[in-house]
Amino acid sequence: MTSYDKENIFAQILAGKIPSVKIFENDVCLAIMDAFPQSKGHGLIIPKAPSCDLLDANPSDLSGVITHVQTLAIATKKAMNADGIRIAQFNGEEAGQTVFHLHFHVIPAYKGVKMGAHSEGMADINELNQQADLIRTQL
Amino acid sequence: MTSYDKENIFAQILAGKIPSVKIFENDVCLAIMDAFPQSKGHGLIIPKAPSCDLLDANPSDLSGVITHVQTLAIATKKAMNADGIRIAQFNGEEAGQTVFHLHFHVIPAYKGVKMGAHSEGMADINELNQQADLIRTQL
Repeated sequence: MTSYDKENIFAQILAGKIPSVKIFENDVCLAIMDAFPQSKGHGLIIPKAPSCDLLDANPSDLSGVITHVQTLAIATKKAMNADGIRIAQFNGEEAGQTVFHLHFHVIPAYKGVKMGAHSEGMADINELNQQADLIRTQL
Repeated sequence: MTSYDKENIFAQILAGKIPSVKIFENDVCLAIMDAFPQSKGHGLIIPKAPSCDLLDANPSDLSGVITHVQTLAIATKKAMNADGIRIAQFNGEEAGQTVFHLHFHVIPAYKGVKMGAHSEGMADINELNQQADLIRTQL
């Protein structure tokens, strides 16, 4: 088990030290656009409670955050006219985790569009802001 | 939104009409081995509450089930000596969903072993039973 690094990028985003494209924020979590999206509208739910991953999270924190994953999934599907939504959550580098602060990926799927396993590059910030605006209208 | 089909395969497994390799069961969910695993030890958490997917689930049911996803993830990582765990949850055919009853995939990742996007075939039932036994020892 990796020990929690208080200076990980999501901790810094939560603390406002690093900018992000916010969708919504509440006491439990921050929802932002993924800067390296696997598809248009790819968002992240980042719980405010610190844990490396799902395995070392406080169960009551998990119970609290999963409903916000649902909220983002519903709003994203509507806003992006997506055909489906993938929820992905990685624990450990070998599983694809790159930031060691628990987070849930909310990834729209579109008919006829192949979803990459990894991002093909950093997204345009204006596009991300437009997507966040669209998603917020559906909250 | 697809309407919930009471005769879907997971509903039939929950009702005991179709056999499965059980890991554990409680009031909230059933944990079974995936018959078409993406890696050794691939399990599923199937909530007992009926919903097509995460988007149409009752939020309080989601809060209840996610802690069991965590329980299975922790036990699976230990039992299988996995290097990581992927949680995947698909909503809609375009996102990869094949059974329209909410379920969470708990997929071990192993260093140097490429994880397939899809199963390469049905697993050997004896192997699944052995894996379920191993995982149960870590609960």
